[in-house]
Amino acid sequence: MDRFGPNAANSCPVTPLGFLERTATVYGDCPSLVYNRTVFTWSQTHRRCLRLASALSSLGISPGDVVPLQPPPVSILGSVSLKSDPFVSVLAPNVPAMYEMHFGVPMSGAVLNTVNLRLDARTISILLRHSASKLVFVDVLSRPLLDDVLRLFPASAERPRVVTIEDPYEDAPPLQSSALTYEKLLETGDPEFRWVRPRSEWDPMVLNYTSGTTSAPKGVVHCHRGLFFITIDSLIDWSVPRRPTYLWTLPMFHANGWSYPWGIAAAGGVNVCLRRFDAAAVYAAIETHRVTHMCGAPVVLNMLANAPDSARRPLHGPVQVLTAGAPPPAAVLHRTEALGFSVSHGYGLTETAGLAVSCAWKGQWDRLPASERARLKARQGVRCLAMAAVDVIDGATGESVKRDGNTMGEIVLRGACVMLGYLKDPEATAKAVRADGWFYTGDVGVMHADGYVEIKDRSKDVIISGGENLSSVEVESILYGHPAVNEAAVVARPDDFWGETPCAFLSLKDEASAAPPAESEVIAWCRERMPHYMVPKTVVFRPELPKTSTGKIQKYVLREIAKKMGSAARPSHM
Amino acid sequence: MDRFGPNAANSCPVTPLGFLERTATVYGDCPSLVYNRTVFTWSQTHRRCLRLASALSSLGISPGDVVPLQPPPVSILGSVSLKSDPFVSVLAPNVPAMYEMHFGVPMSGAVLNTVNLRLDARTISILLRHSASKLVFVDVLSRPLLDDVLRLFPASAERPRVVTIEDPYEDAPPLQSSALTYEKLLETGDPEFRWVRPRSEWDPMVLNYTSGTTSAPKGVVHCHRGLFFITIDSLIDWSVPRRPTYLWTLPMFHANGWSYPWGIAAAGGVNVCLRRFDAAAVYAAIETHRVTHMCGAPVVLNMLANAPDSARRPLHGPVQVLTAGAPPPAAVLHRTEALGFSVSHGYGLTETAGLAVSCAWKGQWDRLPASERARLKARQGVRCLAMAAVDVIDGATGESVKRDGNTMGEIVLRGACVMLGYLKDPEATAKAVRADGWFYTGDVGVMHADGYVEIKDRSKDVIISGGENLSSVEVESILYGHPAVNEAAVVARPDDFWGETPCAFLSLKDEASAAPPAESEVIAWCRERMPHYMVPKTVVFRPELPKTSTGKIQKYVLREIAKKMGSAARPSHM
Repeated sequence: MDRFGPNAANSCPVTPLGFLERTATVYGDCPSLVYNRTVFTWSQTHRRCLRLASALSSLGISPGDVVPLQPPPVSILGSVSLKSDPFVSVLAPNVPAMYEMHFGVPMSGAVLNTVNLRLDARTISILLRHSASKLVFVDVLSRPLLDDVLRLFPASAERPRVVTIEDPYEDAPPLQSSALTYEKLLETGDPEFRWVRPRSEWDPMVLNYTSGTTSAPKGVVHCHRGLFFITIDSLIDWSVPRRPTYLWTLPMFHANGWSYPWGIAAAGGVNVCLRRFDAAAVYAAIETHRVTHMCGAPVVLNMLANAPDSARRPLHGPVQVLTAGAPPPAAVLHRTEALGFSVSHGYGLTETAGLAVSCAWKGQWDRLPASERARLKARQGVRCLAMAAVDVIDGATGESVKRDGNTMGEIVLRGACVMLGYLKDPEATAKAVRADGWFYTGDVGVMHADGYVEIKDRSKDVIISGGENLSSVEVESILYGHPAVNEAAVVARPDDFWGETPCAFLSLKDEASAAPPAESEVIAWCRERMPHYMVPKTVVFRPELPKTSTGKIQKYVLREIAKKMGSAARPSHM
Repeated sequence: MDRFGPNAANSCPVTPLGFLERTATVYGDCPSLVYNRTVFTWSQTHRRCLRLASALSSLGISPGDVVPLQPPPVSILGSVSLKSDPFVSVLAPNVPAMYEMHFGVPMSGAVLNTVNLRLDARTISILLRHSASKLVFVDVLSRPLLDDVLRLFPASAERPRVVTIEDPYEDAPPLQSSALTYEKLLETGDPEFRWVRPRSEWDPMVLNYTSGTTSAPKGVVHCHRGLFFITIDSLIDWSVPRRPTYLWTLPMFHANGWSYPWGIAAAGGVNVCLRRFDAAAVYAAIETHRVTHMCGAPVVLNMLANAPDSARRPLHGPVQVLTAGAPPPAAVLHRTEALGFSVSHGYGLTETAGLAVSCAWKGQWDRLPASERARLKARQGVRCLAMAAVDVIDGATGESVKRDGNTMGEIVLRGACVMLGYLKDPEATAKAVRADGWFYTGDVGVMHADGYVEIKDRSKDVIISGGENLSSVEVESILYGHPAVNEAAVVARPDDFWGETPCAFLSLKDEASAAPPAESEVIAWCRERMPHYMVPKTVVFRPELPKTSTGKIQKYVLREIAKKMGSAARPSHM
């Protein structure tokens, strides 16, 4: 009888790299990327990426052996040893070369490792040695940082080759004429290069270190298959139409910009690149390029919503904004949507390569009052199409928690875009990807009756006060409603009596700084709006809260500060 | 070192069946399906499909063994024996049950086999015995046909169980009260049934017999993985937005309606079902339900374009029409688009489960004259995102043909949605899926300089006249420009001198029937518009051309007629 399975014609590994070639065929003459006065077409981008792949291959960085176009069916099964996989690291902001590397590096057979630009030299040197990167591309303005990084290498350690990405729009100290630059490297490459296709769709393609709000950074490895699925899923889930104009407000070094470098290629869109941005730059870019889509953490929404009138420009039409990383506070949502931004909210982790869950919006919700809409939109939502399942489970029993919107548990995921694992860290991999078939996110949440998931906190951010589990996010979202509050973060402060108490760190809006509220006023305000045990016992005002490069507030910094405060005075009454 | 590959959390088989559950969560209260005065919501459709799966499982039709939700990673590798796979066949038009079976049957672990309703009893009996179907669902109006089918079973052959799908909107002879009906079956099912997930994404899910314009019907088997990819690809490629209203003008029994039963579920849209249709019914459905999307062969476009004024209604807005199966003739395109339909053109085969290639439209083409636009739109185009490659190759050398839009070769495809193979036909499978990694389509085409593929003919439809290969499709598309022509088909007529000559079969528009053109007039008209060797030497007028159920003209019937004509008189001049 028939024994069907992978065959010669259907077992070709899926990979997002193939989108580029197709888009160059269909949209060859259309703009692919805009950066200051530089404009590339898709045909040019395609050829530049092939040049890059070819040049890397010639440098001996990557195997470069041309794998036959049709692998034997068995290849789809493959697991692969990373021992010999060459890593190429990049230290750059959202400039054209950074975009091209998302195709050109893996098209050479190497694995792309984008490094968070705002890490300190010591951490970066640890990462580069951990991945044993053979080559580092570095933005010209980050040369001094990389020099520091390399100085921290032990004398015995092999140093990666360095290629500098110059920038005609930036003043930078001149390079030695012998220095290898990105454009010189490209010139050596063949634009007709036959790119190195993965032998298996499980072959690793990218390595991303988690941002390190926690302890040691972990190297998340994703394969071609996982990235193909998350890219396609992200296009469908956000309803990205053909030829969007996408503004790069999310750093590509952060989880590969939630996979949109490949997604915008698939859709044949325009990538508007920005090296750095503030509200004025974003509004100007939206106006100039007629931006239709952009991504960013809620802090980006906040920046747009609270921009001074001088920076703001009217929108040409609705601009789709996809936010994730933290639930968007209601007040921020109101203000942003009132300005004409159409906000979608999703949820993902570096370990899922992009947004695996999203708050799929129901038409009937449009008729609800604004506060109710905001409450619903702050929920993380339901799995995207290519994910198999999302659930909230009880840590002790492994069972699903009640669908009551109240019972907390750990959010777990299963599906095609879950990572292969952490590089050289089988212990951490085994802790995250368990034999029960779930990926454990480390996020604490609830399951609502309607099947939508809502995060209550990172496990480590949960505050346990008097035995009650208390969601710092919930307290924060209420604090955002205070008219003077710009940003809020709530962490645990040790307490001899309660174990922990909530401690709020706040930055204030510019207009509030003339007459800032007192700590007691904020506490009184909270008492009217939340259960007693959730009310912050301490309020600390700061001009600005410490943030990661992607705009996430660094709670571990605040937690350290709160810890040093020690226990508050024992309350005289309960 | 790390050995990464499929793990417990990322190796969950992909399947389009999972879309239903997600959509029932997000769009539970929204309409899923409309049929006459029947309206279901997604929550109802979800529960009805689970009931169906549960009932089939209880009947002992399918294994029904509840596979653990998380299969061991190794399962993704599996090839599977079809020996024990239970087939469930359906003989029904586009009624609600037909839609539900696309989920409910495979959710029971069985393989869905939709049978072309317009085949004769003898052929259907061959198919049912070939698949050894255990159960047949039959539309109440097709009971007499099925009775004929079963009478043709040899006495020794095991007969499938029969379940009748009743229809409250149709007059039909009453059933015996003991007869098992679809609704009765559903009542026995559990709406909370834990559906049978595939053990491997390569597990077979559907079986479709090719429409039989050629010799023996072949049973195309597709797996969950292939159907997942084609469904997602078809949504992206056609830019289907959230919540489309989709009119079922394409029979679901034809290649599973190009995978849109699963696609419309993924998008949370409305399925408007029609048992039978003509131009008036389609225009009325578009108006009543505010249809946004529909599919059909060019014959459907032709029907809409040539509808009498009494049948036509103004469109509420642009209606997206996806056409495939034959290149849409320019004249038909003009008329349809002038009426407000927005036509996209794609290409696929039963063996690709849907459209694997599409004529991706470039914005700049909008500025071209109508005739040029039509010429470009008639091309089949470029691969969809999930396909790895499409090419046109020389049959003799296996090399790509020149990209000159002229050199003919066979169109070949490679990618995730290529079938597993033909059921119980390893020879035909090996002929179509070759070791060189290509699926051979049997279609003859050219590759244009811009990378777009254009079909010139089915291999068997190519006419070889005086040694020249001549595309019957090309001659037809010119004939469609003749003001009196409604439909045109050109086939080979045997010729003692030329080998073959083109013979045109034409049906005329109603308004032309009063003063039909003479054969010689049509030939003279052609001479002004095409090379001499392409001009039909014979023109036959018919009130209607013979068609398959999907509106494809049955050229093999015409070819038989032309063959019987024998050689034309030897021309006195060349």
